[in-house]
Amino acid sequence: MRLALFDGDRLGLVANDEKVVDISDLVSAPAEAGPGAAMLMLLGKLDTLAEEIEQRAKSSESGLSLSEVKLSSPLPRPGKVLAAPMNYAAHRAEQKASGSVAELGVFLKANSSVIGPGESIQLPYTDRDVDQEGELGIVIGREAKRVTEEEAFDYVAGYTCVMDITLKGQELRSTRKSFDTFTPIGPWITTKDEVPDPDDLQLRTWVNGELKQDARTSEMIWGVAKIVAFASSVMTLYPGDVIATGTPAGTCTIKDGDTVTCEIEKLGRFEVGVTAKDAVPAPHYE
Amino acid sequence: MRLALFDGDRLGLVANDEKVVDISDLVSAPAEAGPGAAMLMLLGKLDTLAEEIEQRAKSSESGLSLSEVKLSSPLPRPGKVLAAPMNYAAHRAEQKASGSVAELGVFLKANSSVIGPGESIQLPYTDRDVDQEGELGIVIGREAKRVTEEEAFDYVAGYTCVMDITLKGQELRSTRKSFDTFTPIGPWITTKDEVPDPDDLQLRTWVNGELKQDARTSEMIWGVAKIVAFASSVMTLYPGDVIATGTPAGTCTIKDGDTVTCEIEKLGRFEVGVTAKDAVPAPHYE
Repeated sequence: MRLALFDGDRLGLVANDEKVVDISDLVSAPAEAGPGAAMLMLLGKLDTLAEEIEQRAKSSESGLSLSEVKLSSPLPRPGKVLAAPMNYAAHRAEQKASGSVAELGVFLKANSSVIGPGESIQLPYTDRDVDQEGELGIVIGREAKRVTEEEAFDYVAGYTCVMDITLKGQELRSTRKSFDTFTPIGPWITTKDEVPDPDDLQLRTWVNGELKQDARTSEMIWGVAKIVAFASSVMTLYPGDVIATGTPAGTCTIKDGDTVTCEIEKLGRFEVGVTAKDAVPAPHYE
Repeated sequence: MRLALFDGDRLGLVANDEKVVDISDLVSAPAEAGPGAAMLMLLGKLDTLAEEIEQRAKSSESGLSLSEVKLSSPLPRPGKVLAAPMNYAAHRAEQKASGSVAELGVFLKANSSVIGPGESIQLPYTDRDVDQEGELGIVIGREAKRVTEEEAFDYVAGYTCVMDITLKGQELRSTRKSFDTFTPIGPWITTKDEVPDPDDLQLRTWVNGELKQDARTSEMIWGVAKIVAFASSVMTLYPGDVIATGTPAGTCTIKDGDTVTCEIEKLGRFEVGVTAKDAVPAPHYE
């Protein structure tokens, strides 16, 4: 199943890569619960609703054409956004960095930094570099605390494409990676039944149509199960929490007017813009 | 005003340090929105509800005795928990650390790590040290994006006591400080009108009744307004987001069976336990 948000927080099922079936009636999220609350509730109830959703897919002739709707991020305000640092050796080498998840653990990005397909990354500063980093995103489906690697997949709802946009510099990762718009997530969530081996998917990113990253998730130092088990050994994970699994080699600076595209095998493809519209000179603090 | 949660997510007004008036009827948060949603909604509406709440305070004879209710954290699941690293020179010296918010920026703690008065910090490992750190917590009251120092207080709802519990070691702060139970917040939120100068408050912590930290927030390298302005220059802040402002000297290791108490002038005092009940040997990863 491919679960999307579209046309202003409607819950949709993407069928055959061309139709979107409105399934907003399956869960009733109060408006006060904020954007994407319906998706978080759906993820927490996938086990019981799967059959009903499959039925809806069969009636997809009645759906809307994918080209007619406006997709937004499937997870506009996750409970938590975790990320694995330095999880591809080739990226670590190009960054001349050391360490890996084993030594560093995971870090957190602000849940307020998420944007979706068609939105734009806002460069904060006129005089500091920002990089694009495409990553496989794990979407949690069940409350997970201290789960083992063997049982980790039981707690995963599915996967999505994540861009971990990053200000270059010396600040802590939580600051450099939490600017508003610095976590594009999309185009939808693909449930795990359609992704038999998330540790072997092609991952590609382009800037202005030029291929920048081209890797397989089999190059990850820690695979999906190990990352989920580790993260859950530190903090309880909840439905809709997202874990970005690190970026391969090929990250590069993005500029005003660029378009950045991320595609992961089986998970789809989406594009965001880049704007320096509100950029200011970086402040120098004492 | 002192705003508390009590007796299972009831919204309360603490009057004269001895009574709790139930004001749950002032906002209607859907149960699906999770613990503390009512408080987040109240914080977002404080301007319009202040007069009504003051009226309720006057009828506090009808309230419950504070000793009869069970307080929980006033912010059991904030949208974001930010924290300022190395914001007291004396603490930085005892840690033999360098840097400050100016160089490091802020970091994020998992919003799933919050506990409240009377709960217990759970030590994760049998063979690694965990420290207590008492801190002034800023509670955001209005959506804040790129606000100036001069206008920062307009976006603050109030203050609370935060303990930033910390696993010692080399992992990134987001990992070492995000274990479940590692962010005690309480005993309530004191609105800013009762705290004319948050940059000059006495802050004390005790372990088993022994005074460990005794400082004034005037020792902070960056004060409240500068921290709020900086954080909002990176990420949009929302009502109920919490910023821990760093800890003074005197942090120390806590052990199974300890009690940790934090008291900040004008903000109240609260205590949590420490347990190693579910502690395991720290794993060694490759």
